[in-house]
Amino acid sequence: MAGDGSATTTAEPPPRHQVLLLRPFPFVSAYEEAFRSKFEPLKPSESNEPLHSFLITHAQSVKALICSAMKPLPAATLRCLPSLELVVTSSAGVDHIDLEECRSRGIVVANAGDSYSVDVADYAVGLLLDVLRKVSAGDRYVRGGLWAVKGNYPLGSKVGARRVGMVGLGSIGSEIAKRMEAFGCHISYNSKNRKPSVSYPYFSSVHELAIDSDVLIVCCALTEETYHLIARDVLLALGKNGVLINVGRGALVDEKELVQCLVRGEIGGAGLDVMEDEPNVPKELYELDNVVLSPHKAVFTNESFSNLHELILGNLEAYFSNKPLLSSVI
Amino acid sequence: MAGDGSATTTAEPPPRHQVLLLRPFPFVSAYEEAFRSKFEPLKPSESNEPLHSFLITHAQSVKALICSAMKPLPAATLRCLPSLELVVTSSAGVDHIDLEECRSRGIVVANAGDSYSVDVADYAVGLLLDVLRKVSAGDRYVRGGLWAVKGNYPLGSKVGARRVGMVGLGSIGSEIAKRMEAFGCHISYNSKNRKPSVSYPYFSSVHELAIDSDVLIVCCALTEETYHLIARDVLLALGKNGVLINVGRGALVDEKELVQCLVRGEIGGAGLDVMEDEPNVPKELYELDNVVLSPHKAVFTNESFSNLHELILGNLEAYFSNKPLLSSVI
Repeated sequence: MAGDGSATTTAEPPPRHQVLLLRPFPFVSAYEEAFRSKFEPLKPSESNEPLHSFLITHAQSVKALICSAMKPLPAATLRCLPSLELVVTSSAGVDHIDLEECRSRGIVVANAGDSYSVDVADYAVGLLLDVLRKVSAGDRYVRGGLWAVKGNYPLGSKVGARRVGMVGLGSIGSEIAKRMEAFGCHISYNSKNRKPSVSYPYFSSVHELAIDSDVLIVCCALTEETYHLIARDVLLALGKNGVLINVGRGALVDEKELVQCLVRGEIGGAGLDVMEDEPNVPKELYELDNVVLSPHKAVFTNESFSNLHELILGNLEAYFSNKPLLSSVI
Repeated sequence: MAGDGSATTTAEPPPRHQVLLLRPFPFVSAYEEAFRSKFEPLKPSESNEPLHSFLITHAQSVKALICSAMKPLPAATLRCLPSLELVVTSSAGVDHIDLEECRSRGIVVANAGDSYSVDVADYAVGLLLDVLRKVSAGDRYVRGGLWAVKGNYPLGSKVGARRVGMVGLGSIGSEIAKRMEAFGCHISYNSKNRKPSVSYPYFSSVHELAIDSDVLIVCCALTEETYHLIARDVLLALGKNGVLINVGRGALVDEKELVQCLVRGEIGGAGLDVMEDEPNVPKELYELDNVVLSPHKAVFTNESFSNLHELILGNLEAYFSNKPLLSSVI
């Protein structure tokens, strides 16, 4: 055919920018080859150098890094990297990043956008169904060989007609509300401001929302204002049959108070994908059958995995081509 | 006030019919006083006599009994009770009752009606979310103290856009389908006949449905025709990423083949509220993290409890007042 053979010109390989990977990211490892074809990954986790010394070694050349919500990115770390221009986090939340330091230095930040909202929403509903209907606890009962020995397991509680209070009604909260409506639940919400396009009842106070709810689902961003938003008074207002679901951040809830309320039976149950001091979980919770514990995995599924990898790569490529970030935070 | 005092006439207490309780029913115990005010419960479980001898003792007087799906009611038991006229089961399904024997003797049968469909539907969705998103397995991981030691737990699978094949689209199946649509799933179904009022794609063969589905949810009645409906060929058609949910009856699935498919990874996972030889569960399943095991409790919640008690009482009262049963089967 015409042109055969003539098309094989040797293209100049594009320059590969260094990208610091602050943790071993599974989505980078899974697509290592694709990543390496465009960027040079720097992995302190695979180096014999201590992190601080590793950062000093690469201080002048590193313009971009990838981090996750699993580990803070404090000013101290950022200050080791004077050439840093771009932080890409694999999370939707950015509370683990010292945004003040980034702002003052003009470092731009990209996150995982809201394309994972449906996964979080699905998981939040899964946790709620589990707590109300005792799915995990029932599974534990059967696996422990108790069904044949001790007979029926205690019944769960009905899902329908529950008053579900959304703490946060962003993209995640809206997806959760849509699902819970299909179960016949009544939705209301608390957020910083009333949303004019939403017809659910609005509560400006989370305490008032808790008084009017059988279930609270926490899915707002963690900021200075929302730190320990779910305090003891909110939990007591939720009451002894009330259920708390947290798929936001651990520190949105005063965990010490939550544990006490659960142990004393002052609230009915909880489904927790996030903890204040992850991956450490208060041991008291291990003994409770009305609690479902989850290792911070609401946000992802296998199917989201390659999407996230593409978004991370896309943000890096956009930045180094002077194009707008795909999911810019600051 | 006019008439004060004059209204206190002594009414003749109505005759109390004997009702045989073939098992200790929690919903009867909880409302024992209300039950005793109308009927005389006969409880073989509280007698020192062996069951057979207990039945013989009361053979001539027992006109009604209450049974559950947890224990068969075979012809042999029915034949011990020549005066029996009414069987009330606390279950929606009636496959545990020898209906042939009942029919031939003119014994009428009442079940739990379909007022529990929403509880079963909620639970089926809970099981599916659990299997896909590994909720119970994640809880086990955290409680085992592994999160802090071994790090992230493997991701689950996305719920949305799944092709959910309903095996049975009665009141339970319809409620499940409604919920799964809110998650963005695509519904199709198999049943004895196409339902003219339903727009979901219909498959007359469950094997064809399995080929076209990522998830099969089994919620049809167990009959001679549906025994082992989910056979090896159906499981293989569902495939190695496919998920089976069973909230119907254990014997709808060829359990031996199911266990083999799960152990060999020939299907992706299962959520099982019912087993073929309840409460005995094949031990191989205890080791599998892609399986959620549940002690046959989809059908009830605490809130359904008093409703069921009222329905059972209502059926007994209706029968002994020569009124139509509230939830007649035959």
